[in-house]
Amino acid sequence: MTIENFYAIVPAGGSGTRLWPLSRSTEPKFLLDLTGAGQSLLQATVNRLAPLAESLVIVTGQKHVAAAQAQLPQLGAEAFIAEPSPRNTMAAIGLAAAVLQKRHGNVVIGSFAADQIIHGNTAFAEAVNEAVAAANAGYVTTIGIAATRPSTGFGYIESGAHLGIAGAPTALHATGFTEKPDAETAAIYVNKGNYRWNAGMFVARTDVLLNHLKDLHPELANGLSEIAEAWDTDKQSEVMGRVWPGLEKIAIDHAIAEPVAAIGGVAVVPGSFAWDDIGDFATLGSLLPSDNAGNQILGGSEGLPDDGQVIRIDTGGTLVIPNSGRVIALLGVDDIVVVDTKDALLITTRSRAQQVGKLVEEARNSGYEDIV
Amino acid sequence: MTIENFYAIVPAGGSGTRLWPLSRSTEPKFLLDLTGAGQSLLQATVNRLAPLAESLVIVTGQKHVAAAQAQLPQLGAEAFIAEPSPRNTMAAIGLAAAVLQKRHGNVVIGSFAADQIIHGNTAFAEAVNEAVAAANAGYVTTIGIAATRPSTGFGYIESGAHLGIAGAPTALHATGFTEKPDAETAAIYVNKGNYRWNAGMFVARTDVLLNHLKDLHPELANGLSEIAEAWDTDKQSEVMGRVWPGLEKIAIDHAIAEPVAAIGGVAVVPGSFAWDDIGDFATLGSLLPSDNAGNQILGGSEGLPDDGQVIRIDTGGTLVIPNSGRVIALLGVDDIVVVDTKDALLITTRSRAQQVGKLVEEARNSGYEDIV
Repeated sequence: MTIENFYAIVPAGGSGTRLWPLSRSTEPKFLLDLTGAGQSLLQATVNRLAPLAESLVIVTGQKHVAAAQAQLPQLGAEAFIAEPSPRNTMAAIGLAAAVLQKRHGNVVIGSFAADQIIHGNTAFAEAVNEAVAAANAGYVTTIGIAATRPSTGFGYIESGAHLGIAGAPTALHATGFTEKPDAETAAIYVNKGNYRWNAGMFVARTDVLLNHLKDLHPELANGLSEIAEAWDTDKQSEVMGRVWPGLEKIAIDHAIAEPVAAIGGVAVVPGSFAWDDIGDFATLGSLLPSDNAGNQILGGSEGLPDDGQVIRIDTGGTLVIPNSGRVIALLGVDDIVVVDTKDALLITTRSRAQQVGKLVEEARNSGYEDIV
Repeated sequence: MTIENFYAIVPAGGSGTRLWPLSRSTEPKFLLDLTGAGQSLLQATVNRLAPLAESLVIVTGQKHVAAAQAQLPQLGAEAFIAEPSPRNTMAAIGLAAAVLQKRHGNVVIGSFAADQIIHGNTAFAEAVNEAVAAANAGYVTTIGIAATRPSTGFGYIESGAHLGIAGAPTALHATGFTEKPDAETAAIYVNKGNYRWNAGMFVARTDVLLNHLKDLHPELANGLSEIAEAWDTDKQSEVMGRVWPGLEKIAIDHAIAEPVAAIGGVAVVPGSFAWDDIGDFATLGSLLPSDNAGNQILGGSEGLPDDGQVIRIDTGGTLVIPNSGRVIALLGVDDIVVVDTKDALLITTRSRAQQVGKLVEEARNSGYEDIV
């Protein structure tokens, strides 16, 4: 099942403020079990990739390395790259690619964010296999997610003609990347049929990726190269500490995917697996089972809400996340979201879920740094 | 200011299940500071009566005596009568009256529940003074509360002609007592003007009260008399333990007030002080200050809500009781009631406040005995 010469990169960043108080700056989304699956999103991501890849590299913030290692005891210390400060996805993925190239020569890397939900591991593995084939043919390859609704929360990938690559029969020319659209534009995209969600999954040969980077962002490429050269030596720490803070902050989408797509160098493999990015509590609710009254409780087992901890009378459409061990009693309330943690309680509605980030920002500015 | 020969009785019973999870069977309403006044309802009641009475007797359940004593360190052990089991108000008040008669001879007692809210101590003292005068004239005297709204949550006292008692210029004949009326009947009462709320405040000479009891409920009177004879002796515990459990369970309203009113023996003194009985969270809300959006937070000082612990964005008309030390964040929710305690969280609406008791009953029957 392992794909020859294929190495997985898992950027684990972002705190997920719209999932506060479940997620915190000290306990970001990727470390949480958001679906009651019995494993964190990071663990699920690693478990999904481990059978496919020769090995994995996790790139995460310095302050999250210990927690990530504790969740992944099967991985050695060499599997973790600690970022002294956030420098966006191009620096993270680029450094991991350069380190893997130093260790293993010219290989194919695939980058998959640590906080996404995927169901359908066989379909996922098929897509990755095709993407690796397209990468081996020289393309920067992305996996496009079937756009099942006109979401304004994701960017989109526009596709063109079939590329006819051996081993990648469904791979298409990627003709463009778009930012999160407005509702009208999103509806047009979904109707057209050749737009897919951009999940930020990129698969490429390290030489292809790093050469594009050298052409497009030479300073960033040089910096990453200098760090990679020192990696796994006694200079690693000194060079990382000196060079990393000066690296350009840019997303891989802007740095590589968009300009390379414009010159015909990007392929997209349509993924047929179920995918979601739990950006807020409304999205989380859409992934949980409901009781007869439409209530959802995170923490149920075998697809059933956990009735034990949440007493409900004349209550419907609620989303309850009991995370403090306390009993929660709901009487005559509808459609609210309740997130109960040891030191903070959030009560909002599904329709306000996207504004939780704003609330957290306001809380941070009002002296609540210790609970956000 | 002390009224000669006047002794106060404070029955402290009832758990206040409609105020769960703030009140518990182990921490009943009268032990709580429900108004942010800095003292419990029991302490406020005692502080209100202490200047008026020669001394006080608190009658409470065996399991609450220690907590009550801890809140009232100024009172000696002789001020507490512990009920081995609940036997309703007639037994509680009757025993206290009999004990006070044994200790002090024929005196005037006044009984005032431990869980009521009163503002206007001067007006209260005036009413008690008049009631004591009417009691000295031989009447079982009650203090009637101005019915400021057609409440269906209280019983009513109907009044007739002035009695013209020296020292009790406003005392009226009490012509009848009613149970909690329906809304239509309550509106009629309030319009008529000669109906007042029955706050269960009874003032009477001990000989008058106990003679009525002997006539109307001779077995109960005998039992109380037997216990009172043994009180303050080394037989107290044995006799209490043997006799109390067999006493009739009846409210003083039914046992004395109603039948004695029917034969012309009850007076009512109109009280002009502000009074309330916090039966549920809606009533509690009506007594708290609001912010500009109509939010009320229990725990504010100097009439201002405690902004420190409750973050509100686009939120109005809520009642929040933070009692766990946690931060509570409300985003886009209106008119809900949030009661946050260390081991249980209640979320309901003001309009459902009266049904919290039902919820507690259901919780008790469903295996949540330890948190109700």
